Amino acid sequence: MIMKVAIIGVGNSKFGKRDDVSVQELAWESIREAFNDAGITQKDIDYTVVGSTAYRGVELYPAPLVAEYSGITNVPMRVEAMCATGLAAALSAYTAVASGLADIAMAVGVDKMTEVDTATSLAIGGRGGNYQWEYNFYGTTFPTYYALYATRHMAVYGTTEEQMAMVAVKAHENASLNPKAHFQKKVSIEEVLKSRVISWPIKLLDSSPITDGSATAIFASESKVKELKIETPIWVTGIGYANDYAYVAKRGEWTGFKATVDASRQAYKMAKISPKDVEVATVHDAFTIAEIMGYEDLGFVEKGQGGKFVEEGQSKKGGKIGVNLYGGLKAKGHPLGATGLSMIYEITKELRDESGNLQHPLKNYIGLVHNVGGTGHYAYVMVMRR
Amino acid sequence: MIMKVAIIGVGNSKFGKRDDVSVQELAWESIREAFNDAGITQKDIDYTVVGSTAYRGVELYPAPLVAEYSGITNVPMRVEAMCATGLAAALSAYTAVASGLADIAMAVGVDKMTEVDTATSLAIGGRGGNYQWEYNFYGTTFPTYYALYATRHMAVYGTTEEQMAMVAVKAHENASLNPKAHFQKKVSIEEVLKSRVISWPIKLLDSSPITDGSATAIFASESKVKELKIETPIWVTGIGYANDYAYVAKRGEWTGFKATVDASRQAYKMAKISPKDVEVATVHDAFTIAEIMGYEDLGFVEKGQGGKFVEEGQSKKGGKIGVNLYGGLKAKGHPLGATGLSMIYEITKELRDESGNLQHPLKNYIGLVHNVGGTGHYAYVMVMRR
Repeated sequence: MIMKVAIIGVGNSKFGKRDDVSVQELAWESIREAFNDAGITQKDIDYTVVGSTAYRGVELYPAPLVAEYSGITNVPMRVEAMCATGLAAALSAYTAVASGLADIAMAVGVDKMTEVDTATSLAIGGRGGNYQWEYNFYGTTFPTYYALYATRHMAVYGTTEEQMAMVAVKAHENASLNPKAHFQKKVSIEEVLKSRVISWPIKLLDSSPITDGSATAIFASESKVKELKIETPIWVTGIGYANDYAYVAKRGEWTGFKATVDASRQAYKMAKISPKDVEVATVHDAFTIAEIMGYEDLGFVEKGQGGKFVEEGQSKKGGKIGVNLYGGLKAKGHPLGATGLSMIYEITKELRDESGNLQHPLKNYIGLVHNVGGTGHYAYVMVMRR
Repeated sequence: MIMKVAIIGVGNSKFGKRDDVSVQELAWESIREAFNDAGITQKDIDYTVVGSTAYRGVELYPAPLVAEYSGITNVPMRVEAMCATGLAAALSAYTAVASGLADIAMAVGVDKMTEVDTATSLAIGGRGGNYQWEYNFYGTTFPTYYALYATRHMAVYGTTEEQMAMVAVKAHENASLNPKAHFQKKVSIEEVLKSRVISWPIKLLDSSPITDGSATAIFASESKVKELKIETPIWVTGIGYANDYAYVAKRGEWTGFKATVDASRQAYKMAKISPKDVEVATVHDAFTIAEIMGYEDLGFVEKGQGGKFVEEGQSKKGGKIGVNLYGGLKAKGHPLGATGLSMIYEITKELRDESGNLQHPLKNYIGLVHNVGGTGHYAYVMVMRR
């Protein structure tokens, strides 16, 4: 029997190129919002974990700086799981509360990724694969890895470049209504298809940007939820995590992520739901093909039907399952350490009916967060309920 | 009420300059030993955390590589807390079990620090302070920070260079009996005092070396301990963690680490013991002065009496409290991610009466592990009992 844990406060900084702030100032933007949201202060926190890849900026060890700047004195560690670093931090805070060690635990995700140039960024990303056998030999970078999956998905299931472009169009449309998103500009299918090819079939507008940002979620035990009289706690009812081979060439199939399949089945089992119960979700769309594969790996549709799902508008606001309604990695932005916690921010707001123009109509108030690290090296799935 | 958690298996690689192995091979050395020690295999593990600073080697993201090489499919994250990374991993595995999410969780610590040259290493260490105000302005590196504390301790309490040298002599004597230690050579007080000054009063032989290594500890729930018929489980009865200012100049006093005081008081309270109950311990001796301050901050002696404690031989094998009996960071070595878990390895072996020539005589079988990150930025204390 696992202790009940709720999310009682969330915060999200403005995402974008944030050379106006230091790492610790950027972190504080979302921490402050989460404190205000939960109605608590520093003294209420028993455990804080910082999720950050410490993205080759000047500060190699950001956690003590975030602690000092935010006036927090119990930050035992930084966690990292590549692009899934945000949910790694969430898992760490979740277990701290569920273990009884902490009554209130906070997960802060932050990365300042624009401090290095794009070429360096691509090199760092490539080293998220296997350095010895892939990056070093073939120069594989993130777009290249995802292009392998995209071409295979096209060959096996007939997925089209147009369908991938529709993921980007949806993301930008949603982001245009989210003032915290990196981009507020809508794009058309034609613009995506005509944008510069990065690694065919992946084009510039199929790719998530390099973004600075922070996001925070505060977790509490059931007794604290009562004590603090939290009006609308959002309960974490399922959590799953899994890995796949570091060496991508070893994987059997390049049409989906086994780690996502495994993690989601664990989370559904723990939450006692099936994929068809999910009403609103974030799906890790580092590239547009990733969202299409995500629909399938999470069980929202049969394998191979992901392209059709977006084409039919089923993943739009008001569709069957509202996916990435705040703009996704693609247009909201993808600051590695913050991304997963920004997903939790989004689903918390949706489940509280606080999303305004971006609010998806809900019946049973069941949401899901899906965060991938590397190219399927890590996958996390969290099920959340009002 | 926190669920009971026991350590059921431990492993420690040979420490030293390990250019004969990759990071994942080095990790496997201690994982294999821990598996054999616990009598389990990969399929028994529900959660594995990798503690590593990913010390500027070729592999920036070691966790998926360790997972793949070791045949483990549930490694949700890497954790980092500078030099306390090993105990950060232990806390992560501990909470995974105590939360009920995992029945068996493994903490693997690994760093290959000799892949970069010593000058780079000192620069990385310096950035464990505050980059903007300290490293960048004054060029402070780790020996310099500890020299600040040493000179202040000498001025306020009359601690001598000879007393610091005695910490090194004890460490090397113990390490000479530990085949896994980085150094097996004994040193004399004269040799320490005459060794090259790094940052006065800290000399070369007052300093821990730059070491490659890995260590592993496996944690299990009470029901698993029974199910697996573990003969001598070692229970984690107390755990504490705390932080201090990142910016060292902000701290009030340079004669000890406030984070150690805070973390130890939490751990003692949870374990329902007082410092005088501790029989065997590891104390974080990155530099000899750190062990002397550690005796005091942990409450083994009154403030200012640390120098006398080592001088009287109270911290030797057979003394009042056996400290760093396997050689300490000073002579066993200090591979950042592995250090804390190597401490857990040592205290587990001591509490099981399995330390042979290095066995301390025990009555109540109460041990303590103390791991510091940065120069007191983090401190962890874990109380363990047979």
